[in-house]
Order: sequence, then C-alpha cells, then structure tokens
Amino acid sequence: MSADFRLKEELPELTDRIVASYHDLGVGHHLGHCPLPNTHEVCEIARDLRAVLFPGYRSRRNLHMGNIGFHVGALIDGLHDRLTEQIARALRHDFMRRAKQADPDSELCTKAPYGGLPDFEADGQRVTLAFLNQIPALRELLVEDVKAAYEGDPAAASYDEVIFCYPGLSAVTAHRIAHALHTLGVPLIPRMIAEWSHAETGIDIHPGARIGPGFFIDHGTGVVIGATCRIAENVKIYQGVTLGAKSFPRDGEGRLVRSAKRHPTVERDVVIYSNATVLGGDVTLGAGVVIGAGATITKNVSAGTKVTAEKPSLRFRAAG
Amino acid sequence: MSADFRLKEELPELTDRIVASYHDLGVGHHLGHCPLPNTHEVCEIARDLRAVLFPGYRSRRNLHMGNIGFHVGALIDGLHDRLTEQIARALRHDFMRRAKQADPDSELCTKAPYGGLPDFEADGQRVTLAFLNQIPALRELLVEDVKAAYEGDPAAASYDEVIFCYPGLSAVTAHRIAHALHTLGVPLIPRMIAEWSHAETGIDIHPGARIGPGFFIDHGTGVVIGATCRIAENVKIYQGVTLGAKSFPRDGEGRLVRSAKRHPTVERDVVIYSNATVLGGDVTLGAGVVIGAGATITKNVSAGTKVTAEKPSLRFRAAG
Amino acid sequence: MSADFRLKEELPELTDRIVASYHDLGVGHHLGHCPLPNTHEVCEIARDLRAVLFPGYRSRRNLHMGNIGFHVGALIDGLHDRLTEQIARALRHDFMRRAKQADPDSELCTKAPYGGLPDFEADGQRVTLAFLNQIPALRELLVEDVKAAYEGDPAAASYDEVIFCYPGLSAVTAHRIAHALHTLGVPLIPRMIAEWSHAETGIDIHPGARIGPGFFIDHGTGVVIGATCRIAENVKIYQGVTLGAKSFPRDGEGRLVRSAKRHPTVERDVVIYSNATVLGGDVTLGAGVVIGAGATITKNVSAGTKVTAEKPSLRFRAAG
Repeated sequence: MSADFRLKEELPELTDRIVASYHDLGVGHHLGHCPLPNTHEVCEIARDLRAVLFPGYRSRRNLHMGNIGFHVGALIDGLHDRLTEQIARALRHDFMRRAKQADPDSELCTKAPYGGLPDFEADGQRVTLAFLNQIPALRELLVEDVKAAYEGDPAAASYDEVIFCYPGLSAVTAHRIAHALHTLGVPLIPRMIAEWSHAETGIDIHPGARIGPGFFIDHGTGVVIGATCRIAENVKIYQGVTLGAKSFPRDGEGRLVRSAKRHPTVERDVVIYSNATVLGGDVTLGAGVVIGAGATITKNVSAGTKVTAEKPSLRFRAAG
Repeated sequence: MSADFRLKEELPELTDRIVASYHDLGVGHHLGHCPLPNTHEVCEIARDLRAVLFPGYRSRRNLHMGNIGFHVGALIDGLHDRLTEQIARALRHDFMRRAKQADPDSELCTKAPYGGLPDFEADGQRVTLAFLNQIPALRELLVEDVKAAYEGDPAAASYDEVIFCYPGLSAVTAHRIAHALHTLGVPLIPRMIAEWSHAETGIDIHPGARIGPGFFIDHGTGVVIGATCRIAENVKIYQGVTLGAKSFPRDGEGRLVRSAKRHPTVERDVVIYSNATVLGGDVTLGAGVVIGAGATITKNVSAGTKVTAEKPSLRFRAAG
Repeated sequence: MSADFRLKEELPELTDRIVASYHDLGVGHHLGHCPLPNTHEVCEIARDLRAVLFPGYRSRRNLHMGNIGFHVGALIDGLHDRLTEQIARALRHDFMRRAKQADPDSELCTKAPYGGLPDFEADGQRVTLAFLNQIPALRELLVEDVKAAYEGDPAAASYDEVIFCYPGLSAVTAHRIAHALHTLGVPLIPRMIAEWSHAETGIDIHPGARIGPGFFIDHGTGVVIGATCRIAENVKIYQGVTLGAKSFPRDGEGRLVRSAKRHPTVERDVVIYSNATVLGGDVTLGAGVVIGAGATITKNVSAGTKVTAEKPSLRFRAAG
C-alpha cells in the first residue's frame, strides 16, 4: 500500500532525455551565462514604484509627512540598484539576441571576460536614472487619471477608493511605468510589467501605446490597446474595448513588418463604450467623439460625432 | 564595466522632488495619522472567511468533525480582532473624508488624542460581530450556489469540483462577504474584497448588488454586475454578460447623482447567455426569461419570454 | 475608546452554530480522513513543471548546460514525490465519491486501515511516472507553440519575449500539462491547474480539449474552449473567442448528459478573430478557414472558406 521507490530508478534516465531535448530543440530554454531579467524581481520593482507613486495606500507602516522622506529615500535607493541590474540584463540579452541573429554561430555570450562588449551595467544605470527622474512627472499624469476616474464613475465614493480599488487605475499606472521604460529603449522589461498588470486586471495595454493624462478605463476586463495607438487627454473607455490592427503588413518576402503604425489614433475627450472595436493605423477618432457599445469602426470619425451601432434585432417568444 | 555609484549622489535631490510632489499635488497620496485599511490584510481576512465558509477545501491540515471546532474557533477568534481593526480604520477614514469635504482645512486627523471623535474601534467591533453572526446564513446561500453550479454545467463532475475549481463560485463567495459588509455600512473594504475577486476571476460584481440564492456564473471572464442590480433566486449567467447602466443621471449643476438605481432587476429562474447586455435601472427581466447570446436589452421583458438576438449575417468566400 | 473584549464571549457560541451548519447542510465542507489535493501544492507543482518545460526563464539561479542536469534532476525527483501524493489524494477522493453515490451511507472513508481499498498511492505513482515520461514530447509541442506565437504577432520581438510575456503561451502550457493528466484519468487536478491558469490569463480551456501543435492565442482575455473541442495543428485565435456548446443534451429523466461531444472541431490552419463564437458538437471548421471578428457560427464551414460577419450598421450624429 505505498509507492514503490525502486520505480524512481528510472528518473535519472528521464532527466537525461529532458536535458537532451534542450539541446535538440534549440528553442524553448534559456541556458547560458547571460541571465535574463528575473520576473519576480521585475514585479517587485513595479510594486515598489507604485508605492512611490501613490504613497501610503498599501504600506503596512504608518506614513506621514514627518517620515515619508526616509521611506521614499530608501525605496528610491533600492530601486536604483535593482532596476540597474535588471535593465543591464535586458540590454545584454537584447545585444546577444541581435548578435546571434547576425551570426548564428556567435559565442559572445559564453566568452569571459566579455572583452569588447558594451558596458551594459553603466548603460543600465544611465537609463535607470533617466527613468527615476521622470517620477514627479508621472505623478502629475496619474493624479489626472485619478480625477478622471472619480469624475467618470458615479459608483466611486472618493479619490482614495479609486486609488485603492480601481483596476483601471492600476493598469494605467503600470502602463505609465512600462511606457516610460519602453521610450527609453529598455527591452523586455516593459512587456513583463504590462503582462503582470494584464494578469491582475484583464486589461492588455502594449507598452508602446502613447496615452495622454486623464485616461480612465472602467471595469476593464478584456480591453486591448495595441502597440502603436496614440490616445490624447481625457479619454474614457469601458470593458471589452479593442483598439487594434486591421491586418498586418508583410514585406516582399511575406515576413511581418514589425514597426508600422497599425493601431488607431484617438483625440481628446473621446468616450468609447463597452465592447466597441476600433481597427487600423490610419483611423482617427476626432476630439469629443462618442462610440456606442458594440460598434466596429474602421474609418475616420470626425470631431464631435456620436456614433451608435444598431443593436441586433430581437425575437421574442413566449415560453412553450 | 560597472555602475558609477557617484551618480547615486543625485538620488537625495530626486527624493526631495518626489516628496515635494506629494505636497504640491494634494491628491494621490495617503500620508497622515489615520491609517487606511491594509490591502494585504483585507485579502487575508477574505481568504480566512472562505476557509470558514467552505472548510477543508484548501487547508493543509487534515480537518474532520473531531478537530473542526478548534480550527474554526481559532479562525473566528482571529477574524474578530483583525476585522475589527480594519473596519475601524475604514470608518475613521470615511469620517475624516466627510469632515474634510465639509471643511477642507479640518485637521481632525492630525490631532491627538482625538477627543470628541466617534469610538471607531467600538463601532468596528459591533459591525464585525454583526457580520460574523451572519456566517451560518451565508453558508445556506452558498450551498444553494454550489448546487446551482453543479446542476447548471454538464462538465462539473461533483460538488467538490465546483467548490475547488469554479471561478463563478469563488466570485459569488467573495460577493456575499462583500455585500454583507456593504449592507452593514462598512466603507472601502467591500470594494477591496470585490476587486480582489475581480482580479482573480475576471468577474466584476459591485458589493451593492443584491443577489438571491442559487446564483451561477459559468466561465465568467468579463462579467460586470452594477451596484444597484437586484437579482432574485436561481439565476444563471455566462461569460461577458453586462448588467449595467444606460446613462448617468446628473443633478442641476451637472454633477453625477451617486445613488439612483441605474442597473437592472432580474427575477427568478432567468438565464442570460454569453456577452448579452442588459442596461438600465428601470428594466426588469421577468421570472423565467431567457436572454440569448449577444442580445442587448434596454426595456422590460415579461415573465417566461425567450429572447434571441439576430446574429450578424455572414459572408462566405472561397480562398483566392 | 476601544473594543470591548467581553463581547468576544459570544464567539464560542457562534463557532458552535457554524460547526452545526457543517452537519446540517451536508454539502459545502470537506471534513474527514480523505484529504483532498491541496490547491497551493498543485499550483507549485504546475510552476515547477513550467520550469522544467522552459528552463532558465524564471529561475533566480544562473542555469547553463553545465548545471542544468542537476537542476532538472532535483526538480523531477521532487515532482515525482509530490505529484504522486496529490494524484493519490485525487484518486482516493474520486473513489470515495463514487462509493457514496452508489451507497450514501458508505463509511469507507472513516474506516482504518482501509482494508480492501485500491492502493491509491501505487496508482498515483504509476500515473505520475507515465506523465513525467511525456515531458520531452510536451516540449516538442510547446516549441511549436512558441514559434507560432512569434510568427503570428508582429509585436513579438523574440522567442524569449513570447516565453516570458505571452499569456497565450502560459495558458497553452498549463493546458498541455492539464490535458496530459486528464488523459491519464486523473480526477480534479487537471481542473485545478486549468483554473489556476484561467485566473492568471483570463483564458478558460477545459482540460478535456484536444489541441494540436502550433496553437496561438493572442491577448486571450475572455477566451473559452470547451471540454470536447478538437483543434488541429497551427490554429490561431484571438481574445474573446468562445468555442462552446449549443445546448445541453438531457437524458429521459431530464438530467444533463455529462459526456456527449458538445463543442466544435477545428481543422488545421484555421484563424478565428476576436469575439467570434463557434457553437456545437457537430460543427467543423475545415482546414484553412478564417472566421471574422464577431461572427457566430453554428454550422459546418468547408475548408478554405473565409467568413466575415456583417458589422452592425452605424448611425452618426453631430454633437448637439
């Protein structure tokens, strides 16, 4: 009546077969001397950044104007060191990836002491400092987002409830962090932060999207905002909205073109109701446009226009 | 080949600028001597409540009728103390918020020893006891929800699978906890519990919604149920269903009216299939109504009616 | 100004009432001497399996070809013991459930030393070894999934980004683990793994679904794939797609038939765009079919056909 531990003798052979599959398949493992950014560490960094952006909301300690300087100073000091390391890893990984693309036999990554490589750690520190210096400006943007959420939702009782409880604000906060890093040319980490937030909120915003102040997403589950979207100030969108691509341009050899503008432009004061879809890089919604629930938009809409989608007609039958 | 730690000398100045932004912007921080409810602690409380409501499902210890009394007793004892503290914090925060609204220069919160304030901790304890006493009644409701899920889904193999694995049940459990606290007048915490569950399940139920026994949500991702919904017993809904508001009433000065009934009433034995939308505080779905997938309903539907939405017509083309 | 701890004297009586509700309601607790699989432990096992399937991506340690054998060997050794225990629990639970169904007064589970019962632990070990031996084959499937994601999304910069950041790949990885266990007849645990992944990604795939290599889900929030789906190789689907059931067959006594094929068959090279719905166990999408966004399909579509759904017609009004 128990497991037979002699059967465990087959485990070493199984281990060998698994390890062999790492060699044979090439793809699907990351083994070598160039450590990737660490997912857990990147998420912890994003959490600490939230604590700097909105201090006092999730802290276990009682923070007040008398001690906040020490608290933020300690957070910033730690963020500097940890972000520098993770960004250095991302830069090194990206450099090696490009080197391998250019020369598949490149063994750069296995060589010590890496003579002739860029100084990834110095570059990581430079980018980290540039990013941290943007925190006061990020706070100004985010305060506008908080106000927009409170103004936009009659169920919100206070700014504090918005900061505490609104997944839309949480997603926009993560996006503003990810976008700032993306703009500074950091590889991988912005996408890791975006997917951390996507997992938490169901809101999928690509770090490349440019979004103005006063942005509010209500409920949010199922929202998708593509990499080349441009969204101006004071825009409000609801659950299930997609700002997506019509089709993917391919080059002469049928390969995907990975940089074209594929997603819409949304001007100021636009409202897009639930489950509406706006597709295409050449589509602009003008200032003050309102898009009704369930509409699909694939052409420009001029400023001030209110668009409603005909609802599917209904058939009513009495119970039989 | 390394970070230059002399560059770190700019961090104190950056810290000062960040702290200054807390002063300047006013919004977006919570600094002071009135600690907010702690998100982590509130989520732990909700987890412990689940363990009391459905004992034995997630415990690492082997629970049986011989030791369950000790186990539940210890949980309830801890819940009493921790919930009292968190509710006291929420009540204090709400009191201060209202005081600040009435008099923006109020410094109530910075005064010690708070002479003349309500006894938030005593109030917190009173509410906590009233809530804990509802646990047996909550269990009766939830057992009906478990049975409804099993009856409603042919893929369910057992009640245990429903309790273990169904996000719909998990969301309804969190809602019944949040709604009971909401009904007792607890601020903030019910919304924190609702968003904890929303993050986990993709199901967004406002704590204000009143939901009868035997409620089943299948799959659930993208479901939104508004604050003033009224749902009777034995109702079943599928993924992507919105029970929402048509538009927000505003008062004479254009401000949102934050208390009107804005969301639908759903009577007993109604089924609402995936991605259907029901909007408006004056809309009632009568007993036994069935709403087909993708329908949008903005008017009353009388009892026993089956509503189907015309599907978008399709165009078929052979590959070119 | 503080909680009155004399009021705590009512807690023992409340505890008694809660424990009594476990007796009275019968359903909604799991108390006894047959421990269920532990949710936390099952999730940790799934995480370790991911680390074996895609080594080096989330590890804190620097893994390379020189130490990966030790690392994987240790993981496999631990997985063997832990998975054996959890599967044994699931098998015992399922056996007892069936015994109770056959004879509600059965007290099998309270009897020691369980004379005459199957040897659940030996069975658990046999199934565990059969499962672990499938890991190299699972890796081959998953590498095809990684390539399909990279080929299918112009925003993907590298295979590594897909493995790190794509919720679709994360969901498919969890599904391939869950499906392998499901196929080996393991109760409960496959559903636990599926819902762990559903909570993380918003993608709900029943472990019963059969899915070929090169499967890519983009964005993914709101996707539902039913238990009896059959999906061939190289299929791509987008957020909000449902592959679901039309209606549930019931037997002569009105009870749900829990085993019929209720969900569609999808042949190779099919693309299904966002929020499309395909319903019914007798529906097949032929090879190379493309289903447009928002379409609802309830009939066969022959190979190579491109289906587009008419979009709801739009009404445009200038602002008043």
